[in-house]
Amino acid sequence: MATGKLLVCGLALFLTIKSNLLHSQQFTISFQRPSDCGVEQFYDISSQSCVKCGPNQSSSATGLSCECVTGFRVLATNGASITCQQCPLEKPAVTEDGYGCILCPGSLTEQGTCQCLSGSILVERDVQGNPLEEARCEVCNGAEPALSAPDSYGDRCQRCQASLINTSQSCMCGSNILVTACLVKYTIFQIPVYLSVPGRSMCTCLCLWCVYTNLTACQALGNMCVMNMHSFSSVANDACGLYNTIFRATAALGSTQDISYWRANLPWLYYGDQPGLANRVLQTEPLPTGFSFKGRNRNTDINLVAAVYNARGDFLQWEKVGGNNLQVKQEVNLDAYSVTSPLFYDVFVDLSRGEDMRLLPLPTRNLNQEYNRKFINRGNLNDWYLSRRVLLVDTLSGREKSLGSLPKVIRIASSIMIGFQLVPGTQKGQVFPPLLSVTYSDIVITAPNTQTVSVSFAVEYEMDQTEAHMKTDIALGVLGGVSVLYSLVKTASWKRRIGSPLIDMETVLKFLLFYAGDLANVFFFITVGTGLYWLIFYKAQHFVSVLLPLPGLQEERFVAYVGCAFALKTVQFLHKLIQQLSVDIFFIDWERPRGKAKHDPSPVSIWRTYFVANEWNEIQTIRKISPTFQIMAVLFLLEVLGFSSLALRDPWSDLQRPPQSYSPPYSLTLRYGLPATLWLCIGLLQIIFFTAFHERFVEDKIRQFVDLCSISNISVLLLSHRCFGYYIHGRSVHGHTDTNMEEMNINLKREAESLCGQRGLLPNTDTQTFQISITSRLRLQYDRILEPLSRRNGPSRLVDAASGHPFDQSTKAYHTMNRFLGSVIDHAHRDMEYVVRDKLFFERVIGMEFMEPMDKSIFYNDESHSFSDVLFYGNEATLLIFDTLFFCVVDLGAQSFILAGVLTYFQQMIFRLIRNGIGRRNLANKTLVDQRFLI
Amino acid sequence: MATGKLLVCGLALFLTIKSNLLHSQQFTISFQRPSDCGVEQFYDISSQSCVKCGPNQSSSATGLSCECVTGFRVLATNGASITCQQCPLEKPAVTEDGYGCILCPGSLTEQGTCQCLSGSILVERDVQGNPLEEARCEVCNGAEPALSAPDSYGDRCQRCQASLINTSQSCMCGSNILVTACLVKYTIFQIPVYLSVPGRSMCTCLCLWCVYTNLTACQALGNMCVMNMHSFSSVANDACGLYNTIFRATAALGSTQDISYWRANLPWLYYGDQPGLANRVLQTEPLPTGFSFKGRNRNTDINLVAAVYNARGDFLQWEKVGGNNLQVKQEVNLDAYSVTSPLFYDVFVDLSRGEDMRLLPLPTRNLNQEYNRKFINRGNLNDWYLSRRVLLVDTLSGREKSLGSLPKVIRIASSIMIGFQLVPGTQKGQVFPPLLSVTYSDIVITAPNTQTVSVSFAVEYEMDQTEAHMKTDIALGVLGGVSVLYSLVKTASWKRRIGSPLIDMETVLKFLLFYAGDLANVFFFITVGTGLYWLIFYKAQHFVSVLLPLPGLQEERFVAYVGCAFALKTVQFLHKLIQQLSVDIFFIDWERPRGKAKHDPSPVSIWRTYFVANEWNEIQTIRKISPTFQIMAVLFLLEVLGFSSLALRDPWSDLQRPPQSYSPPYSLTLRYGLPATLWLCIGLLQIIFFTAFHERFVEDKIRQFVDLCSISNISVLLLSHRCFGYYIHGRSVHGHTDTNMEEMNINLKREAESLCGQRGLLPNTDTQTFQISITSRLRLQYDRILEPLSRRNGPSRLVDAASGHPFDQSTKAYHTMNRFLGSVIDHAHRDMEYVVRDKLFFERVIGMEFMEPMDKSIFYNDESHSFSDVLFYGNEATLLIFDTLFFCVVDLGAQSFILAGVLTYFQQMIFRLIRNGIGRRNLANKTLVDQRFLI
Repeated sequence: MATGKLLVCGLALFLTIKSNLLHSQQFTISFQRPSDCGVEQFYDISSQSCVKCGPNQSSSATGLSCECVTGFRVLATNGASITCQQCPLEKPAVTEDGYGCILCPGSLTEQGTCQCLSGSILVERDVQGNPLEEARCEVCNGAEPALSAPDSYGDRCQRCQASLINTSQSCMCGSNILVTACLVKYTIFQIPVYLSVPGRSMCTCLCLWCVYTNLTACQALGNMCVMNMHSFSSVANDACGLYNTIFRATAALGSTQDISYWRANLPWLYYGDQPGLANRVLQTEPLPTGFSFKGRNRNTDINLVAAVYNARGDFLQWEKVGGNNLQVKQEVNLDAYSVTSPLFYDVFVDLSRGEDMRLLPLPTRNLNQEYNRKFINRGNLNDWYLSRRVLLVDTLSGREKSLGSLPKVIRIASSIMIGFQLVPGTQKGQVFPPLLSVTYSDIVITAPNTQTVSVSFAVEYEMDQTEAHMKTDIALGVLGGVSVLYSLVKTASWKRRIGSPLIDMETVLKFLLFYAGDLANVFFFITVGTGLYWLIFYKAQHFVSVLLPLPGLQEERFVAYVGCAFALKTVQFLHKLIQQLSVDIFFIDWERPRGKAKHDPSPVSIWRTYFVANEWNEIQTIRKISPTFQIMAVLFLLEVLGFSSLALRDPWSDLQRPPQSYSPPYSLTLRYGLPATLWLCIGLLQIIFFTAFHERFVEDKIRQFVDLCSISNISVLLLSHRCFGYYIHGRSVHGHTDTNMEEMNINLKREAESLCGQRGLLPNTDTQTFQISITSRLRLQYDRILEPLSRRNGPSRLVDAASGHPFDQSTKAYHTMNRFLGSVIDHAHRDMEYVVRDKLFFERVIGMEFMEPMDKSIFYNDESHSFSDVLFYGNEATLLIFDTLFFCVVDLGAQSFILAGVLTYFQQMIFRLIRNGIGRRNLANKTLVDQRFLI
Repeated sequence: MATGKLLVCGLALFLTIKSNLLHSQQFTISFQRPSDCGVEQFYDISSQSCVKCGPNQSSSATGLSCECVTGFRVLATNGASITCQQCPLEKPAVTEDGYGCILCPGSLTEQGTCQCLSGSILVERDVQGNPLEEARCEVCNGAEPALSAPDSYGDRCQRCQASLINTSQSCMCGSNILVTACLVKYTIFQIPVYLSVPGRSMCTCLCLWCVYTNLTACQALGNMCVMNMHSFSSVANDACGLYNTIFRATAALGSTQDISYWRANLPWLYYGDQPGLANRVLQTEPLPTGFSFKGRNRNTDINLVAAVYNARGDFLQWEKVGGNNLQVKQEVNLDAYSVTSPLFYDVFVDLSRGEDMRLLPLPTRNLNQEYNRKFINRGNLNDWYLSRRVLLVDTLSGREKSLGSLPKVIRIASSIMIGFQLVPGTQKGQVFPPLLSVTYSDIVITAPNTQTVSVSFAVEYEMDQTEAHMKTDIALGVLGGVSVLYSLVKTASWKRRIGSPLIDMETVLKFLLFYAGDLANVFFFITVGTGLYWLIFYKAQHFVSVLLPLPGLQEERFVAYVGCAFALKTVQFLHKLIQQLSVDIFFIDWERPRGKAKHDPSPVSIWRTYFVANEWNEIQTIRKISPTFQIMAVLFLLEVLGFSSLALRDPWSDLQRPPQSYSPPYSLTLRYGLPATLWLCIGLLQIIFFTAFHERFVEDKIRQFVDLCSISNISVLLLSHRCFGYYIHGRSVHGHTDTNMEEMNINLKREAESLCGQRGLLPNTDTQTFQISITSRLRLQYDRILEPLSRRNGPSRLVDAASGHPFDQSTKAYHTMNRFLGSVIDHAHRDMEYVVRDKLFFERVIGMEFMEPMDKSIFYNDESHSFSDVLFYGNEATLLIFDTLFFCVVDLGAQSFILAGVLTYFQQMIFRLIRNGIGRRNLANKTLVDQRFLI
């Protein structure tokens, strides 16, 4: 049984597959379009295919049905198919309805129907609908009181157009035969086919009709003028010329709505032509309602309404313009356009509040408007001719033969901008009447299905930035002046510190370098201040009182300032870097050999020096903040928490925008101010955290180093300038530290319990770190000891190689230096005495020593470890600002915070490697510690 | 003169300001709409305001002009204004054109014109257009051959509708009076006002008309059925019911286009109703053209064309559907919809190749289709009833009273999806016929201006994922089995290394921990492999052969695997971290006191040990790669170079997309595979760079440490397990290194010139690093020496504090340990001998020692510095994979690469701090070096 079942199943399966295959084959059809059908075929809309017409038939104009050929009448219909029969000789003509044959009074038309003269009608049936044997041609009575004329089908006498009667008191065309022709055509096509009529007859016709008071005709004439781009000349009599003629001629009718440019019965197309009128219209009186970005009165969505007319002049409706999405830029498929009929918009600002419904006409600046073939609205504001009424797309003018054909060219309002100008100094968000600027483009249609055109609609809020610019300039001038003074002080201080009184080229160069740094700070703080100002005032304002600088010229200046700040800061940074890489340093070992046996004193171990040198090498590039954390935190805020949307050119301060919503472009000003502020804030927070918490409770590398010096019985002498530097007093209070673990632990314990003396240079003090101004004599001695070493590195190496073993020389120099510096600190040199004193407050402030070290060197107490000035650690401000500017400049250039973050990381890494690598070599050279121990 | 000029200027200014103020006040108008005008007002489209009509006038229906009230005729017109005059009593009626008065044969209408009976026409003028004194009512002759009936205006006899004549051979309605009424209404409104007609008369009327063969009427009937959502029931006679009745009744007419469901003269609305037909239609035969993503034959843009009909049934055109932008989801303003008239689409796939123009009808699944009030297309594929013809928006059905009113409800195709099913196993991108699924939603219109509706149009490519799942499962099973074995070996190795043969709970736990790590690797490589597979095969395929797993169920499984990998990897990572933090370490100082005088040997300086300990502390967390560089590089590739767009659900592999273009959603599979691959690749590149270049030519921290041990005469003993560990032999070849700079430099120089012995543990070898298996005896001795110290850290501190000074104890333990270990290495302990041998290849591979250290400890030569296994450095693979998974898991959760990067940075930072901090404490505890020196 199972086998049987299986067999049945298999069979069924086979059959199913087979039937399916047959089935599926059927499921494609041949693709035929109406245009694919031949002349003797019609397109069957049910089967979507071409079907042959019956005998004596041809396809109709639409191609969707068949009709009888000339001389044949329809005998019977059956759905789409008809049967045709030839008319007999005695009734050779076919009736208008196509179903009958008839005898004509006159000749036949090409279509085989009867033809009557112009002004006559063709009568084929009597009044009860019975067909006549012979058709009649009847002349319509055009005189009073009949006043009749043939209707548009030419088969009936009808009262003729009222305006015609008004002109001539009859249906006859009195003075101007054109009028009749016009009216007939106008009636037939129902839209002005001005291109299909030779010359400008339709236009003139509309004009006349308008004069004889047909409101729609007047609107149509106006629309034709709008389609002509409001352009006219002093000679030609085109649509706008005719409009103006009528405008002047109908002055007696008075103006409508109390606006003198708006003539009764006519559409309002132009503002007057007085010079400077545009300025007065646009910048005299603000709108009654101010802009408000926030709160209950939030009303940045300016409400625009428009009265819409079609090309025929019919008023269609009042329409809201724009909607929620004011700022749009899009690609539009021409396909969609080419089928729309042109619409004309009279745009108003809706000022309605409750019951008080008021509109403000929106002055329009048509950038394509010409007068005497010159564009007149592209120059200065005072020369503009404002107008009214815009159209979005003109698909009529570009039709070449008839209205049935597709347009070859369409004209599109490719850029529409509504510009608001903020009233200067407003606190309530007052704006002047906005200006609608329209630019039209002519698009030659080549492939309507795929062709697209870029259309933009923008709302721009503008503000006079002169005052802001002036304020910036003043700040720049004042601070620039101050920074000159400050740089001069710095230069003087530097001169003193290098112990040279001469003013030479180097001094000037140095001054310029200092000045670069100070000026960089000025530019930086002015730009950050400006950015922050816009950020706060623009993003936080309730009522609009400031508007962002516009992209282009207004922002260019700002970007230039940022560029200056960055360039100058780079100079300063490199200058500091080079200074740090050439600093003089020496480790003074206080340890003396133990064994008092003079014959074989066990040598003092060098490992403590190695240890200290190694540590110094490690703290070269530590910073007050974690630079990578900095980058990560800024990226996190900007890109993850969405702070970056604060830099968008809109007044909202929401961080997270819905992903679908349109986002406006970024403002460069905000795009600089925002990350710079964030960077500085996070940097500041980090500095506070590290200074107040981390260094106090976790780890303070600088203090650790000073402690290490003390524990290891080693002092550090740093000379950042020729006669200026730093001294870390590291003499151990225990006398010996080169000892075993037991003794070390005891020493440490004793110190922890304060059982031994204090670490300071002076007795009973704790001050271990000093700024030192040394005498030239001391410096000379220092240099003399190092001379053989510097010669070793000098160019005359060949000679020296012979003169002695370099190792010997360096260790000899090391020991000499060690002994010499130790004796200086121990006051063992009479002629190289020094005094210890506190620095004056004012000396601290301006960073310059007032006393010159003539006879005695001066050691200034320095609790604040300012020796870190020769490390990255002591220059955090410069580094932070440099990083900030680097980040912002990369971002401004590439518009990518992530790229900026990544590049800043690499920048930091590269400079850290440079500082570490060259600094290490400098350390090895100057302290004679082998590089192998600086790991 | 200057003063005069100034005065003039001032005056001019004043006047200008004043005139401007006056001027500007004029520039607002009152906002009036046609609906604001009263009954005796008309809306002047020129002035856009309401104007009062003259006497005896009221506003017309449009409200845009005035007309005379009943009984008044127009006497004269002058533009928009007319003059009305009452008709005299002898001619009480107004003519149809409104300009004349006339006597009626019968009664008057409400509008004051003459009224004739139904079937009669009103004649007011003779054939020449002369007005009659008295109007006439004439009956149209409906019989042969006149066949005339009143036209739609009721003032002229015309040949009546052909279909009517076909029915009754006269203009009389034979059987069904309804037909006439229908036809008249249909003619007037030109669209089916089925809701304004009580009952379903219009529908029935269309049906009849369709039966009597009017193609357009048939289409209109079909459209009404489509507007009814293709729904019908077995009883009610609605549009679809009538369609089906006609369909059955006209079986004799045969089918069109060889498709049995497509009846001649009718639109094709349904596929048959056999069960399982949907399955057969959709999954039997693939399309003749395959999909191809790349190259010359790129044709993923499936071409859809549609025959478009309007509601009236007119065929409009063939239209391309979709265009370039296949995947769209957008919010549409209802405003735009409510004005469109509904269009009906017969959608086809265009299979045309050159001359051969063929179409494939697209089967449609209407999810709103009902049968007997039950949704029938929402269940199983086999129960679906496929249909044809869709509409996008229906604004007709929702109009309540007349077509002039705005719709209250509109029905919108809110979700349109075209689903392609890939033929299983295809290599040429073959797909089955796509299915169009449409869901309609009814939207109640409340505020058309602001209301939006979400509309989605999606193309979905689907593939049977069963096979892929099976393959994954097989891989998982096999590799999971292997990893069990590997974990067992690891556990065995661990048992040997801790020198314990017992299998206890700890052993099981340890096995589970090892297994977690291995299983994590299995999951990781399977998921990365899968991700990479999709990335390569999906993104790079020319012909479509694979399609991405769909979001939802198909991807859920994948995400679960990733989650497993991450969780297990975390367990492994934490396990390794804890192991590293508890490693035993001791620095053996080989330096012996110098002075041979026994009474006062100068102590051996502890600073070398400090130095080595400090270095060891520093290398604890160094890694083979730079982890921050890793993050930055991955972010750079993903977000700046745009690799992230590779993870989009589309088959293109362009990195930069135009900003305006629509972007499809991300695929989770790709979104995991892409960053994981990038992360691994960059990690690998970094490892290669650091291993092959940086460590060889710049700096190798591990080798530096080994060198430092040698130079400083210090050996390192590391015990990672109880009886297993590492030994770095650092005995200086110079005997003494605790010396001054001079001697150090000489030593270094001698070694550089190879003038001294080799550094190896065995004579004349270089091998300094060993893996060691020590005997339990040795370990016991080790522990015994450390006992006092561990007690110090233990809980019984009070007791110990009394028993002796902790410093003493620790230094004593230190010295004891130093001596003991030194003597062991020097073979001075008979019972703690050791041998040095090479590790077998197989021992290396499986990471287990075959020989148990019973009597002698075993030192295995280890050139590859495997002691780094107790540092981050030696566990780069685990760390890299952990970071990768961390990054990917955060990204999968938050869909933000930047957040993932930032969090990964913090994760790395936190674990580095933990490793450093606790490792440092461990180091201080085990080596007795004060933490103050580990800086």
